[in-house]
Amino acid sequence: MESKKRIVVVGGSAAGPKAASKARRIDEFAEVTIIQKDPELSMASCGYPYYVGGFFDNRNQLLSTPTGVVRDQKFYLSAKGIRAMVSTEATSINTDKKIIETQNIITGEKEHVPYDKLILATGATPNMPPIEGVNLDGITTLQSMKDADYLRNIRDEKKIRKAVIIGGGLIGIETAEALHLAGIDITVIELLPQLLTFLDYGMAKLVENYVRSKTNVITGNGVAKFIGENGKLTAVKLQNGTEIPCELAVIAIGVRPNVKLAKDAGLNIGQLGGIEVDEYMQTSNSDIYAVGDCVELTNLVFNQKVLAPYGDLANLEGRVAGENAVLGNSVKFKGTIQTGICKVFDYNVGATGLSEDRAKKLGIKVETVINASPDKPGFMDGKLLVSKLIVDDETCQILGAQCVGPGDVSKQIAIWAMAIQAKMCVEDMINADLPYAPPFSLAIDHSIATAHIMQNKRKKRFDGICAHDLKQMIDNKEDVFLLDLRGYDEFEQMRLGMGETLIPLGQLRTRLNELPEDKNKLIVTFCKISLRGYEGALVLKANGYTNVKVLEGGLAAWYYEREK
Amino acid sequence: MESKKRIVVVGGSAAGPKAASKARRIDEFAEVTIIQKDPELSMASCGYPYYVGGFFDNRNQLLSTPTGVVRDQKFYLSAKGIRAMVSTEATSINTDKKIIETQNIITGEKEHVPYDKLILATGATPNMPPIEGVNLDGITTLQSMKDADYLRNIRDEKKIRKAVIIGGGLIGIETAEALHLAGIDITVIELLPQLLTFLDYGMAKLVENYVRSKTNVITGNGVAKFIGENGKLTAVKLQNGTEIPCELAVIAIGVRPNVKLAKDAGLNIGQLGGIEVDEYMQTSNSDIYAVGDCVELTNLVFNQKVLAPYGDLANLEGRVAGENAVLGNSVKFKGTIQTGICKVFDYNVGATGLSEDRAKKLGIKVETVINASPDKPGFMDGKLLVSKLIVDDETCQILGAQCVGPGDVSKQIAIWAMAIQAKMCVEDMINADLPYAPPFSLAIDHSIATAHIMQNKRKKRFDGICAHDLKQMIDNKEDVFLLDLRGYDEFEQMRLGMGETLIPLGQLRTRLNELPEDKNKLIVTFCKISLRGYEGALVLKANGYTNVKVLEGGLAAWYYEREK
Repeated sequence: MESKKRIVVVGGSAAGPKAASKARRIDEFAEVTIIQKDPELSMASCGYPYYVGGFFDNRNQLLSTPTGVVRDQKFYLSAKGIRAMVSTEATSINTDKKIIETQNIITGEKEHVPYDKLILATGATPNMPPIEGVNLDGITTLQSMKDADYLRNIRDEKKIRKAVIIGGGLIGIETAEALHLAGIDITVIELLPQLLTFLDYGMAKLVENYVRSKTNVITGNGVAKFIGENGKLTAVKLQNGTEIPCELAVIAIGVRPNVKLAKDAGLNIGQLGGIEVDEYMQTSNSDIYAVGDCVELTNLVFNQKVLAPYGDLANLEGRVAGENAVLGNSVKFKGTIQTGICKVFDYNVGATGLSEDRAKKLGIKVETVINASPDKPGFMDGKLLVSKLIVDDETCQILGAQCVGPGDVSKQIAIWAMAIQAKMCVEDMINADLPYAPPFSLAIDHSIATAHIMQNKRKKRFDGICAHDLKQMIDNKEDVFLLDLRGYDEFEQMRLGMGETLIPLGQLRTRLNELPEDKNKLIVTFCKISLRGYEGALVLKANGYTNVKVLEGGLAAWYYEREK
Repeated sequence: MESKKRIVVVGGSAAGPKAASKARRIDEFAEVTIIQKDPELSMASCGYPYYVGGFFDNRNQLLSTPTGVVRDQKFYLSAKGIRAMVSTEATSINTDKKIIETQNIITGEKEHVPYDKLILATGATPNMPPIEGVNLDGITTLQSMKDADYLRNIRDEKKIRKAVIIGGGLIGIETAEALHLAGIDITVIELLPQLLTFLDYGMAKLVENYVRSKTNVITGNGVAKFIGENGKLTAVKLQNGTEIPCELAVIAIGVRPNVKLAKDAGLNIGQLGGIEVDEYMQTSNSDIYAVGDCVELTNLVFNQKVLAPYGDLANLEGRVAGENAVLGNSVKFKGTIQTGICKVFDYNVGATGLSEDRAKKLGIKVETVINASPDKPGFMDGKLLVSKLIVDDETCQILGAQCVGPGDVSKQIAIWAMAIQAKMCVEDMINADLPYAPPFSLAIDHSIATAHIMQNKRKKRFDGICAHDLKQMIDNKEDVFLLDLRGYDEFEQMRLGMGETLIPLGQLRTRLNELPEDKNKLIVTFCKISLRGYEGALVLKANGYTNVKVLEGGLAAWYYEREK
């Protein structure tokens, strides 16, 4: 009789437990062991900001099955037949003898755990700025259950009044919301010129404008120094000299893969600092797999390695490694298109695939378009979405999409993620048959309308100009005739105030004489979302105006200041 | 100089105005005319139930642009340069002279409207049961603005107490909600054994169980006769003799294409009674296009003609016909996968592609799977979804999906609709990179989990049995060992009560001795959603039990009565 297969998993957060569980399901008699540094297992770490923000109060919900059973050592043993060693560090791997050395963090007890197949799910560690004062009390990350407990306690104690969030990425933004909901005055500080760098600049600015309605935001400025008294944080000093008094600072400037164990064991580490794995999630040692935030993955859109520390991918990778560890390499995880989403107050932000910014860096020529329109009819309380679609300039293959706004971003991003993974072209989306009823969608779904605008652009019917380019022309005092095609009442409520002419679309055909005599002069048309802007532009072009552009996304996608 | 192209559109609801608008956008100088029988134009007819139900009160919202401008004759003329003839019937087409004869319904005035290209968007007419009393006062459909006004008035007057809805399809169900919200006691009557025939029986029964918590539902019984006093409806008599007193009956037993105009003009009519069109939306007469509810479309999954009266498709078809009418045949509408969705109170119902039922009728061999699981984590108020996935039995190509429940059905159906249109296989969904964050999704999205279960089934790891088959075995007193793997507390709250044995999953490995001695006996495992059911089945199989099946979707997909 064959001896029982020994599967050892290092790491007990997301990818690790999933790999262990999958191994168990495939081989009921394998010896499956999880080695976990933290005292908890299988934490829903993406849920930390919502626990801190008071969306729920029972800490155990972060650690429980859907029926409320805490996934602790006892649970793993009884329900899954898995030995979970908690508060235990894996200190080294002897790859010749196939033994992993462990030490219990509390008792100091050491143990040699033999393996037939090893799965590393060692996760990532938050980056800390290498600056003065970083060890003061009141400075934390939001990466562990311990961090979540610390920040939740701050919420419950209601003593802290001012906090800074250092880093305007996903976790920074989610933490800003959580602490704002805890009644704390928040300032988000981002070194780069924009928040959420997975978005293109203009899209990120729309989010930033919204976030500013809730918290302070400082971009293009980093923290130079943490200032404290008696070991406690009292302020941060920015690189431009500004001091911001605060009693709490949350650092969220990204994470780096935990690869020491792998590196010491001689496994190949990639250029981005993550463990190298192939499509089977196998490392350079054929007895060792690696999954989750500690590995490098292939981006399937541009076929280069990336770090993609997403909780959903961790689970999917774990499932693949768990199966391959037991059965030999049989299932693949091919890579990621880096789909991400976050909620910030009543605003949703998502992206998938390639951004225009990244395309530029990679030398990929793309066409883009902005669509601003509601997710549902007005009579069903439809909410605005602003989308940016990025397609290959030559083939029109869909390469990326971004969507922000109070509307149903999740569905939009899911649709585009599917389109990218299926290597669909714009043409394939033009007549897509998606679920329509007024409680869910416009008759022509926002995603399809976005594809229509792109199609119109490709057919040279829609000549767009983005907010950034138009703003630059205005700032440079270039000769542009701005034509607002909305109604008088709309103009009174909201307007650019940059010398534009208002001619409601319904009067355009009879008021062409108010337009520039020189029919070659640049005219930029717009309305709230630029649908009337587009129709107006067509009227002008048909009447001989040769240089007419539509402001993409209209006023809804204009992220600069307006007169009102 | 070429003369202006004359584009005439018959029909002013959805497809017609879209075709006319598209034609205008492509040719600013074409003469574009809409001939519309109703007094209104461009009605959001899918919104009627929500107006009746009081989701909004301003009738004009059904007729307005997003900025609140009513799309009337004046709007079409000024904003789009389109002549809209309302309250005007197109009485005949002279295809030789290319003239359409019209008559104003109010004034009786006749006019000959010449066309270069004609687009028919004549819509569909609600079916009426050919039975006694069908013309009594108090009997209506919900198809026109007039119907919507009539039912909204009933809501506002608050005089009617009891109503029956005849027909349990999409519009029947939406109307049931609307009138229930108006405080009226509702009975839905469906001739067939199930509501919503685009769903498979079991899925429809889940919806029916929910609807029964709000209204009465009678299936498998039709209306034999409407009974009235003084010309007013007082009751309906069913085919089984039951009389249901009511003051209002809404008939929603489907629609049939309006093809008289087309037929009289000699255009080809298809076997299903709709106007025949090709991919260009062109009829058998090359100068005439047809779009919307009056045409037959190709179902792209099984490549046969279908009637698909959906508002979203009408718009997309209109767009295609409008362009082709102006430019000659240049863009295509290839067909539909019959994606549909509806909301009924706090429950959502969607389907796309092929149902199992239809596959059987078409002789297509499919594999199916049921997945019951929440849309989001419990700590973010996740809500249940029950999905059914239908794939080709040989190739595993995704052919259809159905999803019901209080959760985010819209995203699920959009994902599957994309997968079907992209001809993806289950394998392509296993590691899909979809947007994940706790406010939007589980770490492994419900759609991906559904694909995982299908994969497990294909790999013979998951042997499922559906509620229907199990119920039949129980009713036939076949020898089945029912094994509930939940906790004691869960069992107290909800249980099948059909002689099942309860062994919590965590105790299973140590209580195998309580299982049947005959290891070949059929054991059916389950839990609330059958995740533990699946894990338990794997434990049993590994221990030599040869005939173990998992109840698909667990108790969450069990649509028969339970003990509690």
